[in-house]
Amino acid sequence: MSPFSRDLIDLPASDGRPVLTIDLAAVQANWRLVRNSAHGARTAGVVKADGYGCDAIHVARALKVAGCDLLFVASADEGRALRQDPQLDDIAVCIFYGCMKGDELDFKNNRLIPVHNSLDDYERWKPFWFDGPDPAGFALHIDTGMNRLGMSADDAAAIAADPDFRSAPIVFAMSHLASANTPQSPQNDEQRRAFAAAASGLKTVHPGLPLSLANSAGVFLGADYCLDIVRPGIALYGGQPISAKPLPLEPVVQLHAPILQVHHVGPGETVGYGGTHTTARKSRIATLPLGYADGILRAAGNQGFGILSGAKVPMVGRISMDLTTVDVTDVPESDAQPGSYVEILGKNVTIDQLGAASGSFGYEILTGLGNRYRWRHINQPDPGPSAGR
Amino acid sequence: MSPFSRDLIDLPASDGRPVLTIDLAAVQANWRLVRNSAHGARTAGVVKADGYGCDAIHVARALKVAGCDLLFVASADEGRALRQDPQLDDIAVCIFYGCMKGDELDFKNNRLIPVHNSLDDYERWKPFWFDGPDPAGFALHIDTGMNRLGMSADDAAAIAADPDFRSAPIVFAMSHLASANTPQSPQNDEQRRAFAAAASGLKTVHPGLPLSLANSAGVFLGADYCLDIVRPGIALYGGQPISAKPLPLEPVVQLHAPILQVHHVGPGETVGYGGTHTTARKSRIATLPLGYADGILRAAGNQGFGILSGAKVPMVGRISMDLTTVDVTDVPESDAQPGSYVEILGKNVTIDQLGAASGSFGYEILTGLGNRYRWRHINQPDPGPSAGR
Repeated sequence: MSPFSRDLIDLPASDGRPVLTIDLAAVQANWRLVRNSAHGARTAGVVKADGYGCDAIHVARALKVAGCDLLFVASADEGRALRQDPQLDDIAVCIFYGCMKGDELDFKNNRLIPVHNSLDDYERWKPFWFDGPDPAGFALHIDTGMNRLGMSADDAAAIAADPDFRSAPIVFAMSHLASANTPQSPQNDEQRRAFAAAASGLKTVHPGLPLSLANSAGVFLGADYCLDIVRPGIALYGGQPISAKPLPLEPVVQLHAPILQVHHVGPGETVGYGGTHTTARKSRIATLPLGYADGILRAAGNQGFGILSGAKVPMVGRISMDLTTVDVTDVPESDAQPGSYVEILGKNVTIDQLGAASGSFGYEILTGLGNRYRWRHINQPDPGPSAGR
Repeated sequence: MSPFSRDLIDLPASDGRPVLTIDLAAVQANWRLVRNSAHGARTAGVVKADGYGCDAIHVARALKVAGCDLLFVASADEGRALRQDPQLDDIAVCIFYGCMKGDELDFKNNRLIPVHNSLDDYERWKPFWFDGPDPAGFALHIDTGMNRLGMSADDAAAIAADPDFRSAPIVFAMSHLASANTPQSPQNDEQRRAFAAAASGLKTVHPGLPLSLANSAGVFLGADYCLDIVRPGIALYGGQPISAKPLPLEPVVQLHAPILQVHHVGPGETVGYGGTHTTARKSRIATLPLGYADGILRAAGNQGFGILSGAKVPMVGRISMDLTTVDVTDVPESDAQPGSYVEILGKNVTIDQLGAASGSFGYEILTGLGNRYRWRHINQPDPGPSAGR
């Protein structure tokens, strides 16, 4: 018995293009799993980098139908793209990069919530707070050890001491964990305490101020980390946030590549650029129409694998720009013909596995998904009678 | 004196987005350099993978104005996209993947030239040769050691023996070198001889049949490799085909990222996820709004560098999805402010250097260039009075 599932999703007849399938019901199921683990915290959804490469609009719609009312993206452009969608008109959108100088009115008009990363960001935003019918809400990001983005505890204290802060339309304060995927790291507790200390001054002025610290991994560090708002990203897309403690997440991305050609190769022959793979026996080598230009990282050459007819088919030789070669010698010849689909990602090969085989991780696999594939979003939710205006 | 150029290209005032500049005059200059080295061979241009990530339409137009009349792409979809452009109406377009079953009429209607990779491809194409006003020209790809794509020498012999072949509208025959970037590899000469032998049968029937073997690197192996048609790719985009023998290529891609925020960090502090960089001294760490979702490979963390005010600024800590941190301690504080542009690729940092720092090569840097950048194509050629109909 093969350990690999032969239950393929419903795939179209091959037209020679790889088929990329994004399962939106899986996104929803994963979001619910996080929400049910978040100790009652409001559960946002992180859809930056075009929804981790899965198409931000489709993912955001699915999250909204599941009950999510708060989204995070990196840049203002990403926020504006979400705002163009009528189905997402009433969802809150936060911008991690904050608001660039000169972009304030556009933020306000599009109801984008800037995450202020410095005292200067905060000061520059003040004129817009109550200038217009709606308050221009904002968030604060306090850096507690990433040294990447966010203000210092001193800056947060200066804001707490600012008389104007009393009337500020602040939505929440946040920090970001550097080592949440390593639960035993002492940095987690250090950051948690530093955030609590820095936020305490803000809470003196705004006692009900919601706090947010946890990414996907942070949720599973416990209630002390979930606080009021959690911001899952990778888990929504089926990536394990803590590899040592796998969750029952559903695979969101499935990638199937049809065989373009099969080469019958004798023993001792080499495959691909630089001849980095030498056949040990008489072999059949199948060529697939995808490569590093499609997001199969070049580092996966001679490391990754696909699944065909319930068997592992190793990637042999270097990954080319547009082509990948897999050894199908162990698959019956009738199952390894031009047009036969090889699973590259799916029920049997997770993004984490392909990421690890590429010397990277699942996140980089997701954000590299190429645009030459035949893209399909399946299980699109019904937005309901009030949506789609 | 700094070894790095401070001559920045004309950059727009920062709006917080990285600026990606594609210099089309550099593409043209590089194409001319290859052509002038090709011993009189017809010099094509390879624009697959969206013009190696630089936008196939822009690149193809520039090549055409420079004198190129033959393009190569991987897939039929890529060929159809070129055909949509009126300026490219009269340029020949070849499809490396060949023609999938059922796509024959569309190929013919779009005047796409399939590269047949098997005897079956060839047989399937026959009914279309002279069925219509124009002959449906095709090419043949003979595999000589890649074991990736292309027909065997036996298949080529069978075609040469086919009585129908005498009237076939064959455009050229090709093979592909596996080790051209290593001039001393014996595989080069082996492939050259194998190709000549396999093609000789075809040439008995079609004495004038043009032959094509060389990619960018192959051109610089000498006249024996240039044959009738050369197919440069990477050199057009400024990547060195043979790193041991650098050519005076012009940089095509320039990437400048504005500083989002600067952190003042004490000695012994860590930066980024997992705390993989520890500061050795009091440091200033600048955060840039780009990451692996934008094509800065995660493997460049703690390995790559940028240039700011004539100084190297090393990438420190892990590359995040949307953020990269560089150490700007050695740059005067007034030059390292929010909005200051850091060169990530350009006159001082080649795609080959960033590729090597990422454990990869320039090709993968090119094809990963992200779409969140502010894209600019500069030095767009004038298509001339007869174009743009």
